[in-house]
Amino acid sequence: MDAKISPLALPLPELPPLAGVRLGAAEAGIRYRNRTDLVLLELAPGTTAAGVFTTNRCPGAPVDWCRAALAGGRARAVVVNAGNANVFTGKAGRDTCAATAAAAAKLVGCPAKQVFVASTGVIGEVLPVDKLTAALPALHANLRDDGWEEAARGIMTTDTFPKAATRVATIGGVDVRITGIAKGSGMIAPDMATMLCFIATDAKIPAPALDKLLRRGVAGSFNATTVDSDTSTSDTVLLFATGQARHARVPAEGGRMLADFAAKLNEVLRDLALAVVRDGEGATKFVRIDVTGAVTARSAKRVAMAIANSPLVKTAIAGEDANWGRIVMAVGKAGEPADRDKLSIAVGGVWMAKDGGVVPGYDETPVVAHMKGREIGITVDLGLGRGSGTVWTCDLTHGYIDINGSYRS
Amino acid sequence: MDAKISPLALPLPELPPLAGVRLGAAEAGIRYRNRTDLVLLELAPGTTAAGVFTTNRCPGAPVDWCRAALAGGRARAVVVNAGNANVFTGKAGRDTCAATAAAAAKLVGCPAKQVFVASTGVIGEVLPVDKLTAALPALHANLRDDGWEEAARGIMTTDTFPKAATRVATIGGVDVRITGIAKGSGMIAPDMATMLCFIATDAKIPAPALDKLLRRGVAGSFNATTVDSDTSTSDTVLLFATGQARHARVPAEGGRMLADFAAKLNEVLRDLALAVVRDGEGATKFVRIDVTGAVTARSAKRVAMAIANSPLVKTAIAGEDANWGRIVMAVGKAGEPADRDKLSIAVGGVWMAKDGGVVPGYDETPVVAHMKGREIGITVDLGLGRGSGTVWTCDLTHGYIDINGSYRS
Repeated sequence: MDAKISPLALPLPELPPLAGVRLGAAEAGIRYRNRTDLVLLELAPGTTAAGVFTTNRCPGAPVDWCRAALAGGRARAVVVNAGNANVFTGKAGRDTCAATAAAAAKLVGCPAKQVFVASTGVIGEVLPVDKLTAALPALHANLRDDGWEEAARGIMTTDTFPKAATRVATIGGVDVRITGIAKGSGMIAPDMATMLCFIATDAKIPAPALDKLLRRGVAGSFNATTVDSDTSTSDTVLLFATGQARHARVPAEGGRMLADFAAKLNEVLRDLALAVVRDGEGATKFVRIDVTGAVTARSAKRVAMAIANSPLVKTAIAGEDANWGRIVMAVGKAGEPADRDKLSIAVGGVWMAKDGGVVPGYDETPVVAHMKGREIGITVDLGLGRGSGTVWTCDLTHGYIDINGSYRS
Repeated sequence: MDAKISPLALPLPELPPLAGVRLGAAEAGIRYRNRTDLVLLELAPGTTAAGVFTTNRCPGAPVDWCRAALAGGRARAVVVNAGNANVFTGKAGRDTCAATAAAAAKLVGCPAKQVFVASTGVIGEVLPVDKLTAALPALHANLRDDGWEEAARGIMTTDTFPKAATRVATIGGVDVRITGIAKGSGMIAPDMATMLCFIATDAKIPAPALDKLLRRGVAGSFNATTVDSDTSTSDTVLLFATGQARHARVPAEGGRMLADFAAKLNEVLRDLALAVVRDGEGATKFVRIDVTGAVTARSAKRVAMAIANSPLVKTAIAGEDANWGRIVMAVGKAGEPADRDKLSIAVGGVWMAKDGGVVPGYDETPVVAHMKGREIGITVDLGLGRGSGTVWTCDLTHGYIDINGSYRS
């Protein structure tokens, strides 16, 4: 792990207790030394659950476990370890999930199928399950309702800062809280989900409604971000509703009474997703890409992703070069409808390219100043229709090569 | 331009004259100083032509020009400049192509539509056409039949070594020669074509047959390579047959009498495509990825491309780390049919992963030695069907960041 903190890091918000959740972290010594690497969340009886997972065709054993566990719609505990992803570990990996869930279930007093497990770190090494189950009893005994920051730190791998977000929403006039933590820094190109993210609320929301809210929220947050175009085998976002708040009954299909809750949940999801981008491996610039004028919203997002994933665009940003020629290239390679002669490009709000050429009299001075900042804005108008989309990413620097040329060693 | 030559560079082969082609290079001072940057090929009357071009939706003006010129199926000259791509230059860019072709046509004595133009370099700056047309007459006066190396050097941009290949084929018992030159180093993810490549033969082959041969050959060469996943706006491969050789008449549809010619053409194309990969920006390792056991050949190639374009796989190779976990990730994110538990992975011919886990008793020693070499071989068997495919790429290093963080400045 790199000791240097990302220059794009944000401070952790205050994280008050959330009724129905107790949590904490411990040192299980799985891979790292002198830091916590095992996190346990205990959830109140009656907690409902929703989850979205990686679309990678080679998912880790914990992803398979969680998918099966979600069928029940109920959750009582989550066990997360850092340093070993338990991916491509065959039968041993499946057994590890079952043993971990059984150990936690015994401590919490619930069926193993109400325990969710998640792991990130190195792929292809057997997870030493004994170290994990040995550390669980003491960890369980020390769970606290103010353990959110501890948990946010315990799930980190190459992350340089902990990530959390919290909001208060109202349901039928009653305040409920939504708090989430996330980890992620490299292998970030979520597609239906992202690295690890755990969100809880004290609201009482049926599992189907929870699922609907989570899927919608992820589309505009985690699924609109990329660090390096590589979709992880472990991506997991879990949302739990402990049902401790005293608001009116929410129907299974959710509906209008969840409008404010949905808005605040989306804010939490976006905060967490953007925190992952801000901690992108080696990142020095945080980049927002807005595409307008596309034939559809889906097309706009694909064009934005092609720009966000282009190594040439990302290295130009790292070099503080407003190289809009590379943006033209990335738009053109996206495979979406585009017309060179209708394309317009702005950087930092200054339109540089329009009608198939440079804007006449274009003055680079304000753009050069913008490129020296930490937050870069790129706007592309395709001039074809009304579809728009936004994607967030970071630059590609020597730091990324340093981290990933020697991660295992 | 970096003065350091790629450690993967190959020496230039001997390039004898080819009947019907005279060529040379000059210093037009378009962008570079103290090096040639303008190349002219003159082709004998009756030369037929075929070409394939970038699928980028924002192609450069020269690509549009060549597509239109190809309709005639005849060629008498090619003008290539380095340092300015004449892309996203609007009407000025189109006028530049027309003026360049007109100037060359006057010198050669042909219609402007038989002159092909190509440009690579910076995108979005107007090409100083006057410098180009001013340099053409002296360049034309000095054309030679042994100017192949000079031409190969004159078309380079960030390339660190010139690229050429030559073969002798037989058509109906008569020897014909095929010689090609190429340039390319970054923005390499050809899709139907690649950066710039010009091939000539003294064979007499009708344009439709030439076109068919070229499309087939490009699929297994240029279109099976990637440096950085970025598809250029200028990709162009042109093939000319001067018709000077005295073999029997080839029918329009080509056919069996071109079997040896097709094989040798494919060798030339592959030599040139792999030379571009060997000169990949910052490359220190040349990587061949073979995928077998896919449901179709198309699926195999897509999986191979997902591995070849993964920044995490490429940085691991740069770090000499046989990180097969990242290969599993890349297979899974390709979006093609894959089953984690049927997947096998070998590096340097040693099977490391099989049946959803590490091969029992796997000894990393020979693999560690293989990773320290310059030529890396990765084999992935998906265990699903009989489709196979091969892709070539290079690693991702600090050199790539150095070159692309400061290319324009």
